[in-house]
Amino acid sequence: MDIYKNRINNIKSKITDGAFLVTNDKNIYYFTGLWDSNGYLLITKENAYLFVDFRYGEVAEKTVNSANVIVFNKLFDELNNVLNNDNVTKLYVETNVLTMEQYKTYSDKLNVTLSEENILDKIILNLRIVKDSYELQLMQKAQDITEEAFNKIVPLIKVGTTERTLSVELEYQMKLLGAESVSFDLITITGKKTSLPHGVPGNDIIKNGDFVTFDIGATYKGYHSDMTRTVAVGSVTDKMKEVYNIVLDAHKMAMESVKPGMKCSDIDKVARDYIYSKGYEGCFGHATGHGVGLDIHEYPTVSPRCDTILKEGMIVTIEPGIYIKDNFGVRIEDTVIVTENGYKSFASLPKELTIL
Amino acid sequence: MDIYKNRINNIKSKITDGAFLVTNDKNIYYFTGLWDSNGYLLITKENAYLFVDFRYGEVAEKTVNSANVIVFNKLFDELNNVLNNDNVTKLYVETNVLTMEQYKTYSDKLNVTLSEENILDKIILNLRIVKDSYELQLMQKAQDITEEAFNKIVPLIKVGTTERTLSVELEYQMKLLGAESVSFDLITITGKKTSLPHGVPGNDIIKNGDFVTFDIGATYKGYHSDMTRTVAVGSVTDKMKEVYNIVLDAHKMAMESVKPGMKCSDIDKVARDYIYSKGYEGCFGHATGHGVGLDIHEYPTVSPRCDTILKEGMIVTIEPGIYIKDNFGVRIEDTVIVTENGYKSFASLPKELTIL
Repeated sequence: MDIYKNRINNIKSKITDGAFLVTNDKNIYYFTGLWDSNGYLLITKENAYLFVDFRYGEVAEKTVNSANVIVFNKLFDELNNVLNNDNVTKLYVETNVLTMEQYKTYSDKLNVTLSEENILDKIILNLRIVKDSYELQLMQKAQDITEEAFNKIVPLIKVGTTERTLSVELEYQMKLLGAESVSFDLITITGKKTSLPHGVPGNDIIKNGDFVTFDIGATYKGYHSDMTRTVAVGSVTDKMKEVYNIVLDAHKMAMESVKPGMKCSDIDKVARDYIYSKGYEGCFGHATGHGVGLDIHEYPTVSPRCDTILKEGMIVTIEPGIYIKDNFGVRIEDTVIVTENGYKSFASLPKELTIL
Repeated sequence: MDIYKNRINNIKSKITDGAFLVTNDKNIYYFTGLWDSNGYLLITKENAYLFVDFRYGEVAEKTVNSANVIVFNKLFDELNNVLNNDNVTKLYVETNVLTMEQYKTYSDKLNVTLSEENILDKIILNLRIVKDSYELQLMQKAQDITEEAFNKIVPLIKVGTTERTLSVELEYQMKLLGAESVSFDLITITGKKTSLPHGVPGNDIIKNGDFVTFDIGATYKGYHSDMTRTVAVGSVTDKMKEVYNIVLDAHKMAMESVKPGMKCSDIDKVARDYIYSKGYEGCFGHATGHGVGLDIHEYPTVSPRCDTILKEGMIVTIEPGIYIKDNFGVRIEDTVIVTENGYKSFASLPKELTIL
């Protein structure tokens, strides 16, 4: 696909001096389409080279067209040859990825100056932050799998089912539907535990009158989905209904504010101010959202401190919540893409209060 | 449990100057029993301190007794206070874990000399390499789950089942039985793909006369199991039977050689020499085994280049194989513990050639 060549051309255009060495496997996948747990992608002003070990040689040669594939035997010797041929004297590495030991080894073995500057990570981050149409397709597929799996397990959302059963059955359905993995440890919690934003599913069972929170997602070809729904079982109190609807309104208002030109902190403010104005200051302790893509948490962050300005093609979650300690919590989340004039949600599952 | 206090005392005794800062989550779990994705364990000559963020405060205070729990707000200020109180001027970090950016931040923010030496990782590795009885219990449980899950999916090992179905159903059964996760992406491959030591399950279906290789494992309380069985479906050729029995004999001979005092490379040699002597040189391209524990690959490595001498309490896999390109492969693997006089396998599933 030319998509990978485009991405390589994009990063090449950011080279001012020296060359880039990419080793993070998600970044290598982004630029080549190949998952390689032991790959080295060297991008010089003129060329791109993907160094792979023997295990990946055949598949790399068959599938990668954005870089010259080199099956390495003595990695550093072969890297030095190419660096020398392309007259590279300075090399930028991913300083957020390389460990100290790796950095020492690279410094020692490579005949170039290894930059310690945190430049390459930022360049890649800024490329990955805006998604292209192919990435959007994969993310939509990941979301569709998540919703279909959720629909399959709805009959289990009843008194007596354990939290762990919900998470195990959801993951199983996702896998049957073609997901590679879950996007994160699924959150399927009930009753008082819904007051914990990151509660871990255990042996607690659904009781009559409980909220059940599902914060779930699947990965498809490396891309993550992320969605939260809170449903009630049997009945709800007036208080639960009130809190639910405040969160739902905050969620909808924040969604409606998503468009190119908006500052992330202002989107957070929309949801936060509304929740606080309703008397729930102190009950919404996390950010309104975050970017999603090859990583479950990417830039930008939809938080009070993030001054990133949204652009078309960026992706954020909108997931306000209210958590009342030792009582219950509600969170509602969609993942949305910033469009030319506003936003589009990947999700289609209903959000009005559902009592099962 | 006093087990964690013992482990802290063990590592304290290795301090010659300065103090240790542990940040790898598996190492923190090893020393405290707490899974913490954002923890900092500081071990000085006198004391141990576990710095946790607000999310982990309650559970850390309730469960950790091997270190003083400090719920941090401003991490580096609070680390500096403790370092200052305990008169620490030099700090060792995990150089195989810390990224360059983290190292720069720590150097900048901490009022001590940060060592760049690769010392702390090695000390922890040498502690973790010998397992105690509690760890053995958890590893046995992980193995029992794996075998029970395998037994549940045996009816699926028949003509027409896809590789992916086998892996999805196995993982599902493991989770139902209490596993937290799979030890690694399960390998459930069939036919010609069995000639790939690390083949990935796809839509290929089992055909009559195929070998099917299962390299599988589950985790329980962080500890991994690892087992490989190769079974035949419908029928086998004489060649398949011959290769199977050579691998089985190599596996058994290598197992019998496991005991305290043996050098790892000599165990590898037992399996390798036998396979080569039978005419299959060039068909066994990987090491005979590796350590297992909180990581799926730990030290020691049972390879031609590993001169580690086995001690009681070490754990290794014994997994020789023969891979005939574009034809078929066989691998048989148990994970074993080095005992006072020999070895004990965690596995109980039969290894004689089974035709389903």
